Amino acid sequence: MSVDTRQTSARLNDDELRTLDAHWRAANYLSVGQIYLMANPLLTEPLRPEHVKPRLLGHWGTSPGLNLVYTHLNRVIRTRDLNALCVWGPGHGGPAVVANSWLEGSYTETYPDVTRDAAGMARLFKQFSFPGGVPSHVAPETPGSIHEGGELGYSLSHAYGAAYDNPDLLVACVIGDGEAETGPLAASWHSNKFLDPVHDGAVLPILHLNGYKIANPTVLARIPEPELDELLRGYGHDPIHVTGDDPAAVHRAMAEALDTALDRIADLQRAAREDGAGERPRWPVIVLRTPKGWTGPAQVDGLPVEGTWRSHQVPLAAVRDNPEHLRRLEAWLRSYRPEELFDEHGSPRLDVLAWIPDGTRRLGATPHANGGLLLRELPLPALETYAVEVDKPGATLHEPTGVLGQLLEDVMRSTAERRDFRLVGPDETASNRLQAVYGASGKAWQAQTLQVDEHLDRHGRVMEILSEHTCQGWLEGYLLTGRHGLFSCYEAFVHIVDSMVNQHIKWLRVTRRLPWRAPIASLNYLLTSHVWRQDHNGFSHQDPGFVDHILNKSPEAVRVYLPPDANTLLSVADHALRSRDYVNVIVAGKQPCFDWLTLDQARVHCARGAGVWEWAGTEDGTREPDVVLACAGDVPTQEVLAAAQLLRTHLPEVSVRVVNVVDIARLMPSGEHPHGMSDFEYDGLFTADKPVVFAYHGYPWLIHRLAYRRTGHAHLHVRGYKEIGTTTTPFDMVVRNDLDRYRLVMDVIDRVPGLAVRAASVRQRMEDARLRHHDWIRVHGTDLPEVADWTWDG
Amino acid sequence: MSVDTRQTSARLNDDELRTLDAHWRAANYLSVGQIYLMANPLLTEPLRPEHVKPRLLGHWGTSPGLNLVYTHLNRVIRTRDLNALCVWGPGHGGPAVVANSWLEGSYTETYPDVTRDAAGMARLFKQFSFPGGVPSHVAPETPGSIHEGGELGYSLSHAYGAAYDNPDLLVACVIGDGEAETGPLAASWHSNKFLDPVHDGAVLPILHLNGYKIANPTVLARIPEPELDELLRGYGHDPIHVTGDDPAAVHRAMAEALDTALDRIADLQRAAREDGAGERPRWPVIVLRTPKGWTGPAQVDGLPVEGTWRSHQVPLAAVRDNPEHLRRLEAWLRSYRPEELFDEHGSPRLDVLAWIPDGTRRLGATPHANGGLLLRELPLPALETYAVEVDKPGATLHEPTGVLGQLLEDVMRSTAERRDFRLVGPDETASNRLQAVYGASGKAWQAQTLQVDEHLDRHGRVMEILSEHTCQGWLEGYLLTGRHGLFSCYEAFVHIVDSMVNQHIKWLRVTRRLPWRAPIASLNYLLTSHVWRQDHNGFSHQDPGFVDHILNKSPEAVRVYLPPDANTLLSVADHALRSRDYVNVIVAGKQPCFDWLTLDQARVHCARGAGVWEWAGTEDGTREPDVVLACAGDVPTQEVLAAAQLLRTHLPEVSVRVVNVVDIARLMPSGEHPHGMSDFEYDGLFTADKPVVFAYHGYPWLIHRLAYRRTGHAHLHVRGYKEIGTTTTPFDMVVRNDLDRYRLVMDVIDRVPGLAVRAASVRQRMEDARLRHHDWIRVHGTDLPEVADWTWDG
Repeated sequence: MSVDTRQTSARLNDDELRTLDAHWRAANYLSVGQIYLMANPLLTEPLRPEHVKPRLLGHWGTSPGLNLVYTHLNRVIRTRDLNALCVWGPGHGGPAVVANSWLEGSYTETYPDVTRDAAGMARLFKQFSFPGGVPSHVAPETPGSIHEGGELGYSLSHAYGAAYDNPDLLVACVIGDGEAETGPLAASWHSNKFLDPVHDGAVLPILHLNGYKIANPTVLARIPEPELDELLRGYGHDPIHVTGDDPAAVHRAMAEALDTALDRIADLQRAAREDGAGERPRWPVIVLRTPKGWTGPAQVDGLPVEGTWRSHQVPLAAVRDNPEHLRRLEAWLRSYRPEELFDEHGSPRLDVLAWIPDGTRRLGATPHANGGLLLRELPLPALETYAVEVDKPGATLHEPTGVLGQLLEDVMRSTAERRDFRLVGPDETASNRLQAVYGASGKAWQAQTLQVDEHLDRHGRVMEILSEHTCQGWLEGYLLTGRHGLFSCYEAFVHIVDSMVNQHIKWLRVTRRLPWRAPIASLNYLLTSHVWRQDHNGFSHQDPGFVDHILNKSPEAVRVYLPPDANTLLSVADHALRSRDYVNVIVAGKQPCFDWLTLDQARVHCARGAGVWEWAGTEDGTREPDVVLACAGDVPTQEVLAAAQLLRTHLPEVSVRVVNVVDIARLMPSGEHPHGMSDFEYDGLFTADKPVVFAYHGYPWLIHRLAYRRTGHAHLHVRGYKEIGTTTTPFDMVVRNDLDRYRLVMDVIDRVPGLAVRAASVRQRMEDARLRHHDWIRVHGTDLPEVADWTWDG
Repeated sequence: MSVDTRQTSARLNDDELRTLDAHWRAANYLSVGQIYLMANPLLTEPLRPEHVKPRLLGHWGTSPGLNLVYTHLNRVIRTRDLNALCVWGPGHGGPAVVANSWLEGSYTETYPDVTRDAAGMARLFKQFSFPGGVPSHVAPETPGSIHEGGELGYSLSHAYGAAYDNPDLLVACVIGDGEAETGPLAASWHSNKFLDPVHDGAVLPILHLNGYKIANPTVLARIPEPELDELLRGYGHDPIHVTGDDPAAVHRAMAEALDTALDRIADLQRAAREDGAGERPRWPVIVLRTPKGWTGPAQVDGLPVEGTWRSHQVPLAAVRDNPEHLRRLEAWLRSYRPEELFDEHGSPRLDVLAWIPDGTRRLGATPHANGGLLLRELPLPALETYAVEVDKPGATLHEPTGVLGQLLEDVMRSTAERRDFRLVGPDETASNRLQAVYGASGKAWQAQTLQVDEHLDRHGRVMEILSEHTCQGWLEGYLLTGRHGLFSCYEAFVHIVDSMVNQHIKWLRVTRRLPWRAPIASLNYLLTSHVWRQDHNGFSHQDPGFVDHILNKSPEAVRVYLPPDANTLLSVADHALRSRDYVNVIVAGKQPCFDWLTLDQARVHCARGAGVWEWAGTEDGTREPDVVLACAGDVPTQEVLAAAQLLRTHLPEVSVRVVNVVDIARLMPSGEHPHGMSDFEYDGLFTADKPVVFAYHGYPWLIHRLAYRRTGHAHLHVRGYKEIGTTTTPFDMVVRNDLDRYRLVMDVIDRVPGLAVRAASVRQRMEDARLRHHDWIRVHGTDLPEVADWTWDG
């Protein structure tokens, strides 16, 4: 359906039109003011160069379109008493969203020094893109925002994440036509196949085609409209078009389009909720086609600006030096007739405020955009129910993620009514052994189902789509609006969201400094199907570098755990699910793994983050050991224990300490990470001068980069994944990367003073075992029986 | 158009149908054999457990569909004498593509020990997913492949990259319906708006809807067919459907669909090339809907398998232990009637080979899939033309990337006829100051153009789309088929392709070990708009961690350069563009930057990768300096030189050495990276025991992780980006991160023995300067005049 401005009959009366336009003009005025002015905000005197900022940094191009959307959302929120949130995809529209928040009062409520008067307006203008001020994007600092617009592509998945399990919420989502070219955005259109019209709210995408990116036209603005309509219908939407450049006509068309869309959403929700309709709804989408930089300078220095990419940033760039530019800027500002919009104190006049919703209905004041306000404690059951029995270490095997799956099943169950917990993953929930959750919730699915399907559920809260980007975006949106969740992912492919998690961590870092932002539930990753167990996938599925990536980011917001068995995984997961404002990365195996610790031991060990496993070593407690065997990660832990056993057998006189590290940031200096150990603690654990042979799950140099300041660093020898991967057996993988038990024993022999000569024959025996492995695997394609059948005999 | 199997009139005659089916059955037989058998390949005796591999690792589900496509591509290649390449998106179909390569003979030509007879078949079977054998995915080891299928999402952008500037090439691209859910794949459909029907080849996407992923139905298989058609038409394609599960009917339909598609492609190309048609063509796409695991076991243990997700991997899992499974496997294998397909020596019979194309027309033998064979030297002009004049260091300013742009313009020009060089970027070519290239080539664009547009060109070789994924995929496909290119990107957002570049580096690492793979041109990144100069974008645009990510990967394939000025950038870029089989990361600024080195000096310096800038220090050459000021990156270099100048002024008695590092891997030990320095070299440059204050462009701990083994490491003090970012001035950024000149001088004072007391007043002066900065910027929003106007006085 097309609400072309040329055909629309006026449904707004003149008064409504006038007040809507007043609001829009006010927002436009304030947007331009933020970009340009540092004084004389109301133009009470003629504009002079010194009123203009010395550095002009901002983006005008997208602002008038966003102002139009905000203005019209106000109207429908007010007339329909909607509970609404808006995700602003074109993030460079910072000035627009800030302007609207100031107009509606939420800005001043959030930042009381930016009053809704001339003095506050002056502050508002100056602070924008000013050092120490507010960013040019929609950002954590922006009231009403759950979406930072600096990196494009995530608006729509954030919007869906916000809408899931919020049945009364309308989530409008403005998608820029630049952003629409990105992969994550393109994939996220299909999120509507996962939106339950009964338990979820509605998402109303508003595709804003202003036609240009930084320097190019956009693809979607330059395909014929019928082709665009096919695309949007192919995505499962019904398009409604608003096209034009005459403000009055566009106001009328936009009002009608929103009314049409919201009527249809209400109908679809009613059909599903009251009539039990089971068809996947065809939700509306609004296509808003207005000029880039609309109402700005039409031409500058003889070149077209309004309606072109030249209006992307600052249309008039030389205002302080070029009197003609200064004059044009003043004319531009005055074209909004500020005297009609603001009273003599600089406060918005009643006409401007006619459509502002009340209280928390305002987009800048909705608690859904400050989700911590709505967050409830997750009902986590006692871990004892799920813990595996451990009579002695290493006597039994369990799949750690399978055990965790049982806990997650009960979390799912206990949130069945509240619906504030979701599990997301790229088609890997069962592969990652979490299938127990299906006992409490099916998989969200609104597309066709067949008899043969299992666990698909129109009301499910397990989310699976083969797009890590979409999973990440959904979960971020869900958490930012005050709920809980966990993302399970193959370890190697979580790199797909490296850049997304960067932005989320940046968001957390900023919000942690904003007192008005309430803490939200942490973003929890369970990384499994990890580097050491890619038997049938091989090299392309082997990459443990996400931990390195995460540890580059703000220490206050990132936590990394490598639980070595089932009970430690339970303890870590419990901790992560209770925590706030972190990104928690948990790396754990899905293959059968020895149980080392009882639940009580696991709790103590995880609380410490790193500790001596006395039962595994041979220290007598009277003096420091000869060597420390350290480990982090399930496979390295097994190899270290096997090495300790070999040492006990073959070199009983060597005193060995075994240290296991769960919380990898413990290795950092206490001044560099909140979890970092003091040097005193570190030396107590690892010694200051004894050799440490450290078997690490990932890239070995990470351990050096964390521990390089430690006294004993020169004695630290790390084994890990050296980017030598292939399709092979578990033990062959560790042999190829020199992380195997035999190599670790050789490392000890090479490093403990005096041992090299004395233990030469043992060393040779270890070499021989590695050779035996190579010979065996070539013929049998399996691991040596003594490795495959190994058990801890301690 | 729908070629539904129920409606298709038979156009294949019986003989054709019989031979096509024979080939398909042979390929299916060989696929199953690879997954299961390690002996008795021709079933010359009844199948026994010991004929079956002990570990069953592989993916049957997608294989029959890929075999069908390969079989039918053979037919059209042969009948039309096509120059064709196929990109196999469902990478788990390794057994299928390998089977077809073996049938056509290209496998044996590539791997002579895998002969096309029973002995070779036995090897073929055993090696698959066997330790030390071949991967289960389509991989670098697979003849005819330019695409590793382990990580999904990149097939279609690879296909387009291969097609660009290959006017005679047909690039078929099988897209799995799982892969189709990913963001990168979803975005890449729009690549057709960038495909020039005159100078580029054709891409024929074959969307294979077998309906399931690992454990779920796929979205595109479960939306109504009319909705799918709208989606595909919205992407700009004309869909042709092939649907069915009766082999004979599907053969007929597939043959007709391919003929229809290829006729249409030929018509569209003729219209553009001969008739000068200027309309963007609507290219065909084939939608192939056949059962997952087609022709495999229909049910296993009472559960449906064929046509469901249960056939994804190994349908019969317990073959060695369960006699019923063994029996079923034998029946399954014999259902292909191997005796009709292979002669008594195990060689394929003539019927099977009837459609195999000749020589390099075979998909497994096309040189386009081994692009190094086709690669020509890039005509690089002499750098003297572009070099900036440097009479003395630091006296002039240039935008380094702007200077590089002039070189790239001439590379564009000199390849205008050859068309084997492309520049890709996400809408940032001009923003990154490379706009000079438009003098030699416009931007590829097939969508609508308007009067106001600039530099859009139906035949352009500058590629801009706001999708880093698509840019990366295009360039990879272009390079892998034997051409050259460069990707310019904002530094922070190159993380978007972290996972893609992982896979490309893995590809390079494997191909470097395959003697039959000819070296290809390196993948060159120009990372600019970097962390220190995000004045109007702020925190979301600040992330220098791509270097850390890259340096985790195989050292043989990765190179990282941080040229400090225009001439060093020219030298580094020239080197990168000439190199082979690397990923080169070049980090360089686009803002005006001091010129430090003449071209000749730059060449020598870049060849060394790191060196002393004698003119910047105050050593007298008779003894080691008191301190080394080291730097890497343009902004750190400027701050180090400013610090050196302050030291010369305020503490002339301190002997300072200035070291600049261009090639960051030089810091690594020589045993860890081919560019690593020996300890002797390192100590000569940095000393073994003098304090080194190192100003680094990125995360400071990277330098520690590279240099932790060096003798002098305990004296190494690194400053860099500490994840403290915001919208602010360039100098404020370095102050906030303690990388500024004043802080560096303080670091020197704190670290040179005996200086702390003697230079206390100088240290205070530095502190004062930082405070002055804080006061100034709060008021003026600009940098201190003495910083803004600073010049080198050496």
